Amino acid sequence: MKTKSKTKPLGPIPACYQAIDGELAIGGHKASDLVEAAGQTPLFVYSKDRLDARVADLRAALPDRIGINYAVKANPHPEVITHMSGLVDGFDIASSGELAMIERAGIDAALVSFAGPGKRDDELEAAIAAGVTLNCESEGEAERSLAIGQRIGKCPRIAIRVNPDFELKGSGMKMGGGAKPFGVDAERVPALAKKVIAEGAQWRGLHIFTGSQTLSADAIIEAQGNVLNLAQSLADEIGEALPKLNMGGGFGIPYFPGDEPLDLAAVGEALHGLLEHYAGLGDTDLCIELGRYLVGESGVYLCRVIDRKVSHGQTYLVTDGGLHHQLAASGNFGTVVRRNYPVAIASRFGATPAEPVNVVGCLCTPLDRLADMAELPHAEVGDLVAVFCAGAYGATASPINFLGHGPAAEVVV
Amino acid sequence: MKTKSKTKPLGPIPACYQAIDGELAIGGHKASDLVEAAGQTPLFVYSKDRLDARVADLRAALPDRIGINYAVKANPHPEVITHMSGLVDGFDIASSGELAMIERAGIDAALVSFAGPGKRDDELEAAIAAGVTLNCESEGEAERSLAIGQRIGKCPRIAIRVNPDFELKGSGMKMGGGAKPFGVDAERVPALAKKVIAEGAQWRGLHIFTGSQTLSADAIIEAQGNVLNLAQSLADEIGEALPKLNMGGGFGIPYFPGDEPLDLAAVGEALHGLLEHYAGLGDTDLCIELGRYLVGESGVYLCRVIDRKVSHGQTYLVTDGGLHHQLAASGNFGTVVRRNYPVAIASRFGATPAEPVNVVGCLCTPLDRLADMAELPHAEVGDLVAVFCAGAYGATASPINFLGHGPAAEVVV
Repeated sequence: MKTKSKTKPLGPIPACYQAIDGELAIGGHKASDLVEAAGQTPLFVYSKDRLDARVADLRAALPDRIGINYAVKANPHPEVITHMSGLVDGFDIASSGELAMIERAGIDAALVSFAGPGKRDDELEAAIAAGVTLNCESEGEAERSLAIGQRIGKCPRIAIRVNPDFELKGSGMKMGGGAKPFGVDAERVPALAKKVIAEGAQWRGLHIFTGSQTLSADAIIEAQGNVLNLAQSLADEIGEALPKLNMGGGFGIPYFPGDEPLDLAAVGEALHGLLEHYAGLGDTDLCIELGRYLVGESGVYLCRVIDRKVSHGQTYLVTDGGLHHQLAASGNFGTVVRRNYPVAIASRFGATPAEPVNVVGCLCTPLDRLADMAELPHAEVGDLVAVFCAGAYGATASPINFLGHGPAAEVVV
Repeated sequence: MKTKSKTKPLGPIPACYQAIDGELAIGGHKASDLVEAAGQTPLFVYSKDRLDARVADLRAALPDRIGINYAVKANPHPEVITHMSGLVDGFDIASSGELAMIERAGIDAALVSFAGPGKRDDELEAAIAAGVTLNCESEGEAERSLAIGQRIGKCPRIAIRVNPDFELKGSGMKMGGGAKPFGVDAERVPALAKKVIAEGAQWRGLHIFTGSQTLSADAIIEAQGNVLNLAQSLADEIGEALPKLNMGGGFGIPYFPGDEPLDLAAVGEALHGLLEHYAGLGDTDLCIELGRYLVGESGVYLCRVIDRKVSHGQTYLVTDGGLHHQLAASGNFGTVVRRNYPVAIASRFGATPAEPVNVVGCLCTPLDRLADMAELPHAEVGDLVAVFCAGAYGATASPINFLGHGPAAEVVV
């Protein structure tokens, strides 16, 4: 029995990666040198140069008054957080665990906001005590926050997360439009805001997050227009200017064959125009909240070929990596149809594709696939495999204890 | 905008769970008492009674000569491994991490076999040194094992994992039939076995794993017949009796609406008949390898309602649990279409369903769903939610670091 072997395309490798001596280089270091210095594969490598460049691109494209927040959940590695603290204007956290990370990095709590639909009382207390802004997700959470603030004698900083009636079109994760566990339905926001202000909380404005991971500039422009429009009308109903508006994010990165990078210039240009229309928000501190877009392409996951084998006419490169570090790349997280991420033979980077191979992980499950029937240069046991777009939702969004192989190493260069 | 609200069925709660004082009881303890003793939610509870009962059912149904192996990957909690060591005949591991767990439990290495497509040299060395049987996945791996055995002066115990030409029909995870990263294609097994024997390894026979998680007795019976037939013909070609045959597993448990438990009696009866036909395997030590079937229904995941909110006419129970502990129940691991697991309000167990609700986790992502539009008793903030079938591939097969909430507690009762 010979299995039909049709090659499948790979996702696009971010343009910033080049070869040195025929090897993939990350931040100016050859993959093999990085692995040797770390003393092991699998290894995540995050490049500060790429973080710098991405933020610089955003600054160049977006109006000056738009602050850039980093959503820590995308990559909470301590050195990444520390490096981002020199680049961005604020941080968004999603748990008291992330609050502790932010505190360890010495980041000013006044720059931090905390969103998440299931904040426990102890999390609210820690955040209020620290002076972090709560993006309240419901009337009940706002009441608990006010009560906790009173109990501990500290005025809570409260913003309201809005569940808008519109969505971010083409978004990988829709977070608006219809019934949602996130935020307060838009029509109930003015009453809650008035109550929060009346009860003496420090009013911090609104958080409107419509979705994530879209590559369509038009969709982002439309969503940003809707967000500004909704924010202004809610501010009018509340009867008080918004001190702050978190406009959400949604900027995507290309993962899959055929994906094209987001047209950042178009988004920036449209936003310049939009801001002129919303004079009522003239005194409002505006920001966008990005995670994946800031750090995703800065990271590469390196693993080593442990075995090369043939089964029914198909070649398998079995690596020491896998879905325990790269759940999304394996096709098992947030995707319905599995497609190949950008993957390369790092130790033969740029070499001519020579054969179709399946790149799999070391886990004893058929779910553990890194590339299906990909045209790659001939690789042998000992070669290094790179999975790109590994800077966001890799190390922490994967089941590290699955099958007992343990976590990957991580290094920031 | 009111979102269309159609209720969706829940998966079937395992029959063994009853209420005490209107609360779910696990191993004779009320859910609230278990949570109080653990000092926190979320909490995994594993019941030794259920483990005992499941193994007893298997012993009663299967022929005496069929050994039962426990696949540690399903639930490697130290107390679960220790308890299983008094119940089963052998253990299957998938990494050197699992080898360390087995060693810590004081389990005799002669009872342990190690399968997995990407075994590193250091893993092979640890296993050979310990005296664990290697289920070799390729010619290359067998060669490395022989070389390592020679280098460290210890004769490796080698079995060959076979990639059979047939599959387990209706299986959640197919591991045979066509090109696969697992094992050696059947037609190449005799040559490799002869070589391994000739080079002086301790010959341990064959491992034939055809798939997992099927609820069809007919499919398992057919696969077991095919396995025995293939094993006998390979033994004939090898020219030596098989010391051992691991027949694989595949016994499923019901997770989803409409799922019916496996007819274990039918499987046992058929296996009695099959064994009479394969006289050539009369001296072969036979075993089946089960993970999920042994431990899955013994476990319950308990989390607490943190918020109760309404959005566009739908009610949400927001819990402190989520996909960071229950990836598969959220519909994000190994399933294409999301369906509801068995879920209940543990603190009102057996109460009449009163309303359709969405039960979600605390993670700030729309992927974090525990039950969609499920008819459940009215629940308030503070109530406990139970997700059943949490004994296998829960705590260790989920991204515990995602969003920084940390791991759940685990207790064995």
